[in-house]
Amino acid sequence: MELADFAISRLGNASLPSPLVNHVFVDDDARVCYDTDAETVARYIKEGKPIPSFERAGARAKIFHDPAWSKAAILTAGGLCPGLNEVVKFLTLTLMNRYKVPVVYGIQYGYKGLNPVNRLSPIMLTPEMVDAIHEQGGTILGSSRGEEDTGIIVDTLARMNINMLFCIGGDGTSRGAHDIAMEIKRRGLAISVIAIPKTIDNDISFIDKSFGFSSAVLAAGPVVTCAHTEAKGAYNGVGLIKVMGRDSGFIAAYTTLSNPFVNYCLVPERPFTLDGDSETALLPHLVKRLEAKHHAVILVAEGAGQDLFASQSNQRDASGNKLHQDIGLLLKDEITKYCKKHNVPLTLKYFDPGYTIRSVKAEGEDAVFCSMLANGAAHAAMSGRTDMMIGHWSGAFTHVPIALATSARKKLDLGSPLWSTVRDMTVF
Amino acid sequence: MELADFAISRLGNASLPSPLVNHVFVDDDARVCYDTDAETVARYIKEGKPIPSFERAGARAKIFHDPAWSKAAILTAGGLCPGLNEVVKFLTLTLMNRYKVPVVYGIQYGYKGLNPVNRLSPIMLTPEMVDAIHEQGGTILGSSRGEEDTGIIVDTLARMNINMLFCIGGDGTSRGAHDIAMEIKRRGLAISVIAIPKTIDNDISFIDKSFGFSSAVLAAGPVVTCAHTEAKGAYNGVGLIKVMGRDSGFIAAYTTLSNPFVNYCLVPERPFTLDGDSETALLPHLVKRLEAKHHAVILVAEGAGQDLFASQSNQRDASGNKLHQDIGLLLKDEITKYCKKHNVPLTLKYFDPGYTIRSVKAEGEDAVFCSMLANGAAHAAMSGRTDMMIGHWSGAFTHVPIALATSARKKLDLGSPLWSTVRDMTVF
Amino acid sequence: MELADFAISRLGNASLPSPLVNHVFVDDDARVCYDTDAETVARYIKEGKPIPSFERAGARAKIFHDPAWSKAAILTAGGLCPGLNEVVKFLTLTLMNRYKVPVVYGIQYGYKGLNPVNRLSPIMLTPEMVDAIHEQGGTILGSSRGEEDTGIIVDTLARMNINMLFCIGGDGTSRGAHDIAMEIKRRGLAISVIAIPKTIDNDISFIDKSFGFSSAVLAAGPVVTCAHTEAKGAYNGVGLIKVMGRDSGFIAAYTTLSNPFVNYCLVPERPFTLDGDSETALLPHLVKRLEAKHHAVILVAEGAGQDLFASQSNQRDASGNKLHQDIGLLLKDEITKYCKKHNVPLTLKYFDPGYTIRSVKAEGEDAVFCSMLANGAAHAAMSGRTDMMIGHWSGAFTHVPIALATSARKKLDLGSPLWSTVRDMTVF
Amino acid sequence: MELADFAISRLGNASLPSPLVNHVFVDDDARVCYDTDAETVARYIKEGKPIPSFERAGARAKIFHDPAWSKAAILTAGGLCPGLNEVVKFLTLTLMNRYKVPVVYGIQYGYKGLNPVNRLSPIMLTPEMVDAIHEQGGTILGSSRGEEDTGIIVDTLARMNINMLFCIGGDGTSRGAHDIAMEIKRRGLAISVIAIPKTIDNDISFIDKSFGFSSAVLAAGPVVTCAHTEAKGAYNGVGLIKVMGRDSGFIAAYTTLSNPFVNYCLVPERPFTLDGDSETALLPHLVKRLEAKHHAVILVAEGAGQDLFASQSNQRDASGNKLHQDIGLLLKDEITKYCKKHNVPLTLKYFDPGYTIRSVKAEGEDAVFCSMLANGAAHAAMSGRTDMMIGHWSGAFTHVPIALATSARKKLDLGSPLWSTVRDMTVF
Repeated sequence: MELADFAISRLGNASLPSPLVNHVFVDDDARVCYDTDAETVARYIKEGKPIPSFERAGARAKIFHDPAWSKAAILTAGGLCPGLNEVVKFLTLTLMNRYKVPVVYGIQYGYKGLNPVNRLSPIMLTPEMVDAIHEQGGTILGSSRGEEDTGIIVDTLARMNINMLFCIGGDGTSRGAHDIAMEIKRRGLAISVIAIPKTIDNDISFIDKSFGFSSAVLAAGPVVTCAHTEAKGAYNGVGLIKVMGRDSGFIAAYTTLSNPFVNYCLVPERPFTLDGDSETALLPHLVKRLEAKHHAVILVAEGAGQDLFASQSNQRDASGNKLHQDIGLLLKDEITKYCKKHNVPLTLKYFDPGYTIRSVKAEGEDAVFCSMLANGAAHAAMSGRTDMMIGHWSGAFTHVPIALATSARKKLDLGSPLWSTVRDMTVF
Repeated sequence: MELADFAISRLGNASLPSPLVNHVFVDDDARVCYDTDAETVARYIKEGKPIPSFERAGARAKIFHDPAWSKAAILTAGGLCPGLNEVVKFLTLTLMNRYKVPVVYGIQYGYKGLNPVNRLSPIMLTPEMVDAIHEQGGTILGSSRGEEDTGIIVDTLARMNINMLFCIGGDGTSRGAHDIAMEIKRRGLAISVIAIPKTIDNDISFIDKSFGFSSAVLAAGPVVTCAHTEAKGAYNGVGLIKVMGRDSGFIAAYTTLSNPFVNYCLVPERPFTLDGDSETALLPHLVKRLEAKHHAVILVAEGAGQDLFASQSNQRDASGNKLHQDIGLLLKDEITKYCKKHNVPLTLKYFDPGYTIRSVKAEGEDAVFCSMLANGAAHAAMSGRTDMMIGHWSGAFTHVPIALATSARKKLDLGSPLWSTVRDMTVF
Repeated sequence: MELADFAISRLGNASLPSPLVNHVFVDDDARVCYDTDAETVARYIKEGKPIPSFERAGARAKIFHDPAWSKAAILTAGGLCPGLNEVVKFLTLTLMNRYKVPVVYGIQYGYKGLNPVNRLSPIMLTPEMVDAIHEQGGTILGSSRGEEDTGIIVDTLARMNINMLFCIGGDGTSRGAHDIAMEIKRRGLAISVIAIPKTIDNDISFIDKSFGFSSAVLAAGPVVTCAHTEAKGAYNGVGLIKVMGRDSGFIAAYTTLSNPFVNYCLVPERPFTLDGDSETALLPHLVKRLEAKHHAVILVAEGAGQDLFASQSNQRDASGNKLHQDIGLLLKDEITKYCKKHNVPLTLKYFDPGYTIRSVKAEGEDAVFCSMLANGAAHAAMSGRTDMMIGHWSGAFTHVPIALATSARKKLDLGSPLWSTVRDMTVF
Repeated sequence: MELADFAISRLGNASLPSPLVNHVFVDDDARVCYDTDAETVARYIKEGKPIPSFERAGARAKIFHDPAWSKAAILTAGGLCPGLNEVVKFLTLTLMNRYKVPVVYGIQYGYKGLNPVNRLSPIMLTPEMVDAIHEQGGTILGSSRGEEDTGIIVDTLARMNINMLFCIGGDGTSRGAHDIAMEIKRRGLAISVIAIPKTIDNDISFIDKSFGFSSAVLAAGPVVTCAHTEAKGAYNGVGLIKVMGRDSGFIAAYTTLSNPFVNYCLVPERPFTLDGDSETALLPHLVKRLEAKHHAVILVAEGAGQDLFASQSNQRDASGNKLHQDIGLLLKDEITKYCKKHNVPLTLKYFDPGYTIRSVKAEGEDAVFCSMLANGAAHAAMSGRTDMMIGHWSGAFTHVPIALATSARKKLDLGSPLWSTVRDMTVF
């Protein structure tokens, strides 16, 4: 990892005094170490190398954009995620109440709303208008998947004199934001583009936590209780739950520990087979458990066991995400067939709570996280940062280049305390 | 309706003084009018006919079974329903704390647990053991579907000296209880058989409310919010929810009014078509709404629109209930196809929250209802009633002959204030 | 009870055809029997007396007010109660969507909003405006206590051409509505005044259930769990909870059965002493329980044990309700002193969740009840009924003269199945 | 900060191979940097000083205690906190399922249970026994405040051959654990003493997050909604909420951001006055807001504004915590008096939800945190660490000397992004 990979683009010299009063400002060049392991840091020192670090987020004493002339725009794209409205609310509050930005547009249905061909008027966001939106899940702006032409989007921004664009969305949305920032740079415009990473799967690299994840885990907890109740309510009852987790098993692992009634936690990172003699053969293991305990709860991430399908799919959704085949239904069928074949009585109940989990509002600490993330994003934009993502690392809010953040997906580390604790309490 | 249809069987003369102290007893022959409409009652009077009425439930001053020698047994059968554990708890408390019945067996997995071939030991229920069970959904006794031989069941009851059997279950379970009571009568045994009706669909005739229904409606409310959130979060978003309701649309109608974001409420009692010109053609109506409002929420009871399937199914589950074809998936497909055909953009999200709704615990007034129902059932058994169901009518708890209660299913009355209010707030 | 007591006032002859299409209308003179006890009914018949009955609520084929010229007004008064917004929403929907009433005013802060001196503009209610208000507790109209001059209120109604006034509130509000209806009659105006009874205590006579009560019981359940948890978490832990119930113990009794961890349920209807030898002496009984079980949960209605205070209060709030002295704090002190005196270790935690319970939104069946009640109230007003309250009896919605409904308070019947079940599961 | 302050005591050489199979072990000397600020780290390097760091938690390849001969004991002390049962469950699972420790005692009522004079038998913890305890708040072991004689406690441990003691509690409990560890050292015994820090206030230094805090914030959210509902439901309505926070305003600050309806967030770290001309005078500011908006929500931490009391209290509870005077009641009175004096109408509702918030169960990520913390504590004990606290820092679990952790309390930093975001959305 080179320090250069962590460099944040700036539109220019921030020379205006911040209008924030009685505020403790962050030093403009403050940074947060990427590594916290003492030995790793020592090695850098020994080798005389600079220690890789993120720029620290927060309000700066000098800003780039003149608030009085500013027009900000906010959009949400991709699938729903808890906290979208909380982020929209706090962006609006920080920009309008603190910086006195006079105009904040809510762009409808993601990037679609920036292409005039779609004839979608912007929503005028104000502190009054956003006052109670944090009480609802989803997004008051509407969302959509799919791309729009980068040139047309920048035309719209320029035509409307928008000088700050906040893109709340997943990998695809962030790549789109990067393209927009590149085009803006090419044209020599002074528009800040700030991405706010939305991934319910918590799988963005260089960001240790993404908003909405925690509320999704919270919402998944009661489903585990239901599955456990159904499993115990029948002889050889099996409660099978599919949760989100396209490439990473974080929701599955966290849900397992948050409501420890789960006996099998299946994630994309750890391969398993259905039948066979190996330790990782699910079906024989399950039957042994049923014979001993007469009930079991299985939690499977949607991206787990994709190699078990006879033919591989290559379909992708409008955001470019690989569409997985349905591991939940496969397991349901295979468990049923296997038990029938071996004359094991079985009552299997299948739970697919995806949309119920992602459409709740953000609560508790997750809502706090949303508010601080939005706050940091607003400060970053005002300071003239661009082509960056607002992030979080080692307890601090950070600026992360979009290109770095989208360069790889975060995965469960099977040697981590998290997975080790999952293993300690499950049986497989 | 003849008064004779409401007659309750008694094992014999209740001659023992009740051990309840400081208790206000119900007169042994107290009755509750079946009709409450003033004109109907007047007609009975004019015609000189007796007014049909239910026997009133409650503790009697004289009881039949000698508590000191009594052994009670409780079983739960059929699908899960909120409140099962609450009922088990209050049966146990009333029998053991009040009447001082020394032995209360919890029979495992429904009728299965009364057939020795299944080798399922009874659970010894005590006030300590049931203290916190009301905090869990499901049933601590386990449940099952399917029949066991009536003769063998009565053999078991006789062999174990069980003189009170409480059967908590649906139509099939109650019919089984009736058969057991008949066989007991044939053999001249003194065993009370009391059914406690469990139907999450609230579709038992002669009983105006069944336990668990209210908690199911409560649990369905947040799902409507999620569907509404998903629908509003996308351009032309449709949230489609399937809820329980095999033959009656009570859950659908109540859920619609409890969280009035529903635009289409589809129930078994009201036919509709998919395409066509008629007022009851769903798809053209939906498309018109999408064009005007860009979102819609549809709630469909599982038994609705069964005539829309090309071929009719005749499959039944182990309890003898007709297995419906999946109207939820049919609608999902048909809406998608129709919109595609008519070039209407659509984002449809499908919710099937069945098991999540039925496996919650009973809460609030529903839990109160469970407790009073169980209390009434225990009093009925102690008084020597048999072959009856504990019921509720016009604000009072009642005794209902099982044969009467299972003679027909309760349906939504499309002329009732309930359905009229549903129509007033939905669009179809 | 005379039939005349149940007579409902009408402004005049309902001669306009209802605009409701495809609607099953209620016969204009349909009635619901007051008594459901078979013996009581038989006695009426034997004595040749008319059976007392309520007018049945529901849409009529002929209406009095011409919708096209109508202006309705809705107000909420008194303390908060779950379901207020649900009622406001469904009044608005029925009046505007079904009857096409063009103007529905939301009056601010109760009767205050009808006195011009307070300078409070009405809120224009529309289907769009009320779409999501059922998701919030409280009242979007604001509420207040206290009286305004009846003459001035009628002046305002007349000046504004309001011909339907809906007053959602408690006893004081309903008496105010009655006064307004009397004044309207005196002046010969054609304004319907309909009261919608709001009492979280469920203590209105001639109405078997009031809206919000069920949601309040639901909200109180988790507090009992907390009190039980605190009680079990300490040696000789006592969880003491005060709930609403000024004159009637319904909330206390229902909460006790809905979350049966309560050991002592203290209500206004059943006197008890603190110290002494009698069976109803609380403190010695409690200490005996602590010695045996080391924890206890006590639930006390605010109106219980008022005779235990040395000096009696005669204070009343702005609505004219007697202000009780704080039985919760008295018990807290007395239990602490008694245990200290008798060297019994004690950890007492006191819970006073009043405002948290009453400010939640209505949920589940309670919300359904609100919607149907509002629907019935709107139909009653359109038909020209006045000086009446919308009610519920024996499973039907009813019209109740305000004078009858406010003539006495409903109390817990200590001989009822409800209290009997409470006694069966508590220890005192 | 010296590196020596971070040194962890070990009972001796860990020479036994860990029984954990397929486990990724943590290097025995792995460490986590205390500082993450790049500049601070650079200064250490420039000055040639060692970088302060914590020992990293996790399973070691070599352990000190022989599992087969081990007896562990777990106790909970001080006030309730969400997650206690989750910690007890995961300690038990890790010790018994993974390490095969044959005996795990649950000590009743904190340190009291280790003094034979109190005659409290230990509870035998097993995986079956703890299976569902995470579904309850509080602690199944019972808790208590107050000290017991250190010598007697060590006598008990020695007599019972307990070689691992887990003390879950606050500052007082941890200091007690330190004393026990000192006495054990003095006697030359081989007993590991591990503290698991419990502080709902999240105010332990050198630990960036304490368990239960997040669930408490979650539980406080709905109370803010209730207060907001009450405030908006009355003319000049004020909702005043007191939350925990003896010396630190973390719960208040997080609750404010998690449910951003709060207008005034009062914390111990930021002084304010009642009356006067200054910017920090609460009452004039509040009245100005009421005149403009007619409602306000105030959230006050129990330790805020203690200087406003005329006479200072010096009372302490049995755990040695300073007992604060009631700022909630003071504000209630002062606001009422001030408004009366200035003829400002006011409807104030006071909320004191303390025990309701702390007695809930841990949920979502907080429950995950509990499980991993317990896991780390069990590994630390098995490795022979002692006199330490399990902690968390910069995303990693850590070992913290008890003496260091109890040397100072963590406070809100008024220059931090957290407080800055609070200020951005509140008005005071």
